[in-house]
Amino acid sequence: MSPSAAPVRAGILVTGTEVLTGIIADRNGPWLSQRLVEEGVDAAMIQIVGDRPEDLMGALRFMADAGMALIVTSGGLGPTADDLTAEIVGEFTGREMVLDAELEEKIAEILRPLMSRWPNLDPGAIREANRKQAVVPVGATVLDPVGTAPGLVVAPASGSGPTVVVMPGPPRELHEMWEKAVATEAFRSAIAGAVSYRHGVMRLFGIPESEIANTLRDAESSGVQLDPLEITTCLRRGEIEVATRYEAPDEAAYSAFVDFVARRHGEQLFSPDGATVDEQVASLLTQSGRTVAVAESCTGGLMSARLTELAGSSAYFLGGAVVYSNEAKAALAGVDPELIERFGAVSTEVADALAAGAAARFGADVGIGITGIAGPGGGSEDKPVGTVCFSVCSDDGARLTRRARLPGSRSDIRERSTTVTMHLLRRLLLGEGITTVPTQAAGSGDRA
Amino acid sequence: MSPSAAPVRAGILVTGTEVLTGIIADRNGPWLSQRLVEEGVDAAMIQIVGDRPEDLMGALRFMADAGMALIVTSGGLGPTADDLTAEIVGEFTGREMVLDAELEEKIAEILRPLMSRWPNLDPGAIREANRKQAVVPVGATVLDPVGTAPGLVVAPASGSGPTVVVMPGPPRELHEMWEKAVATEAFRSAIAGAVSYRHGVMRLFGIPESEIANTLRDAESSGVQLDPLEITTCLRRGEIEVATRYEAPDEAAYSAFVDFVARRHGEQLFSPDGATVDEQVASLLTQSGRTVAVAESCTGGLMSARLTELAGSSAYFLGGAVVYSNEAKAALAGVDPELIERFGAVSTEVADALAAGAAARFGADVGIGITGIAGPGGGSEDKPVGTVCFSVCSDDGARLTRRARLPGSRSDIRERSTTVTMHLLRRLLLGEGITTVPTQAAGSGDRA
Repeated sequence: MSPSAAPVRAGILVTGTEVLTGIIADRNGPWLSQRLVEEGVDAAMIQIVGDRPEDLMGALRFMADAGMALIVTSGGLGPTADDLTAEIVGEFTGREMVLDAELEEKIAEILRPLMSRWPNLDPGAIREANRKQAVVPVGATVLDPVGTAPGLVVAPASGSGPTVVVMPGPPRELHEMWEKAVATEAFRSAIAGAVSYRHGVMRLFGIPESEIANTLRDAESSGVQLDPLEITTCLRRGEIEVATRYEAPDEAAYSAFVDFVARRHGEQLFSPDGATVDEQVASLLTQSGRTVAVAESCTGGLMSARLTELAGSSAYFLGGAVVYSNEAKAALAGVDPELIERFGAVSTEVADALAAGAAARFGADVGIGITGIAGPGGGSEDKPVGTVCFSVCSDDGARLTRRARLPGSRSDIRERSTTVTMHLLRRLLLGEGITTVPTQAAGSGDRA
Repeated sequence: MSPSAAPVRAGILVTGTEVLTGIIADRNGPWLSQRLVEEGVDAAMIQIVGDRPEDLMGALRFMADAGMALIVTSGGLGPTADDLTAEIVGEFTGREMVLDAELEEKIAEILRPLMSRWPNLDPGAIREANRKQAVVPVGATVLDPVGTAPGLVVAPASGSGPTVVVMPGPPRELHEMWEKAVATEAFRSAIAGAVSYRHGVMRLFGIPESEIANTLRDAESSGVQLDPLEITTCLRRGEIEVATRYEAPDEAAYSAFVDFVARRHGEQLFSPDGATVDEQVASLLTQSGRTVAVAESCTGGLMSARLTELAGSSAYFLGGAVVYSNEAKAALAGVDPELIERFGAVSTEVADALAAGAAARFGADVGIGITGIAGPGGGSEDKPVGTVCFSVCSDDGARLTRRARLPGSRSDIRERSTTVTMHLLRRLLLGEGITTVPTQAAGSGDRA
């Protein structure tokens, strides 16, 4: 840790029994954490509580006691009686609740087109349900609703204690409103003096996490200064992410650390700058003007979905075939049924044929083939659940083929398969791959 | 709230800077919350903190002060120096840390095959990195590692205060180890006296959340007893979920509530028993022996991926085509290029042709067609971003076609589109749909 001034710390309080009980996963906590860091604020804790007033208040008090200068809440602003956040925050900051007439009118205006969409509803009842959303702590900075709920920035009435930023729960509303919140006077003064951190991320594929622990030790004994760096490592979808936070003057220490990792894990460090493999593949395809097509079985459409996740993918993604049945493998990806008969649907031979078939069928420069057993049924001794065969091929005759046994659940296996494929595709686009005679069933016999 | 004995409350403490800083989303908190509820324990709070010792300790103490009988931690058991959980929990429960020689040997055994997979690593260094994982609080119940990290159940040395269950961070390891943890004597005695709750979930599609607030009010004024029910409502992927928790003797009150909602929202209440639309569609397809195929554009493979998410889907899912380009729409789904020329690629006419083409191409009983603009680019005044056309058709000539304007980001629009499609498919499988002459371009002219 750097010996500089103590950072401004913030707590994030996510409310809602539906998040707490696991019905839905919270996406707001991590998102807010990233945004706070951008503002130079140290997001020190995320707490999720249900819709119980005493738990909300307890969490706010705990965060205040732990020295948070700022608390950001999300959720609990809806029209139903279990939505309590504004009221509790009013009590916490020592401010009375008052009806904001101007805000009430704004909400009514927002509801008008909604009511015309749902003509059978009772307008009076809806307006009453939403009037509750116009009752706010006196003196709070009110942020115009994005949905129907307003946001709030509430400084403590006494002048001491954390400022509370009250945000709606739906991620889309939260994201849009956040920009308004950070621009307010009340927000800026709450975080005055925040230290600006830098963040670096490295991504590695193909080594176990324990090896990174050794690398950190060896870096220190080789004289690389790790003290000013806050380094965390984690496994994510089969990749290792090394995230580092540091202050601007420690840039040189971070560069030395990246260099050390690059020297030691040159093969595995596919991203020294934090770019994801998805972003790298997108940019390799865009830059080269090459197009790609998919024929996938066990991943059931996830590979195509992943390739089309980023905006602009229509420039290089031509199409995909989800070929679950053997008939579909033949009809849509031109796989010779004899090949399936001879090697089985899950085989490197069929993966190669799927890749070549995808490229041919969609007229793409690069083809991807995936076939495997996602489970829970369908495994055998020879090909247990998790066995997946991958092939990527390009029109210049290069090809990379893999057979892997992936761990985890059906969903894990499907997701990991797309990661393995992204890395094969990346390497192919970077010029790796055995050059073969590019006929559709090429090499099908010589690997058995 | 029911007036019975106070429930046993538990806190969940998720550690790891990578979760706190939003690099990865926490899946363990919600999962543990659901498991605790199954044990009759009230998961009252989830807290996420970084790898700072003082924040970990602060969170444990806060949960103890808030009256938690049990605290479940996840993460911070890895081999790197930033993994501190076991040590902090030892201090919190007042127990010294000792090396467990038997456990050390178990971890060494687990690492042996791993080291043969990665032959270039230094075995001594790896063993040292992992020895740290064998140092545990004296007197703790040790749970055998699933990965390389052991779990722990640690009762307070003083006999008063919460029992801490220490679990690994990787979800797969956590899930497997949880079963062992709940079976321990230490766990059982910590939750002695837990009240067993029942949970009911209703799902609705096609009404705004504010309408549910009115329904709750009207239910009460019609004499339905809502007092013993803890009801929460939330919006999720375009559906409304009404989750209710109650104690066994209040079953009749819950039934009356479900009946009231069913009378009032018969059309929209597609699931009075909590089954998801995915499960309903899977069971309708399985029971009827019908098969399904997809031709999708803007959803990029997500529709096929969603239909193949559940195990056993290969019985009814024949395949899918991701037809991004107009050429692919023609080549893989047999869409007449003239239709695209005349109505545009995003049109109900092309959606109908995609559905019919998917069914024909894969030989399926039911076809699905989706075409739309997921954005951020590609919108026009007539067809703004979020415009999506859907069609489902069956071989008996029934068909449902929709055009919708969906809100949100590229990712929201893609995901919501799959939800709208699942509901159309459900209704078609239940026998709805206009019967048309089942030729491929049927009706293409009469809706313009």
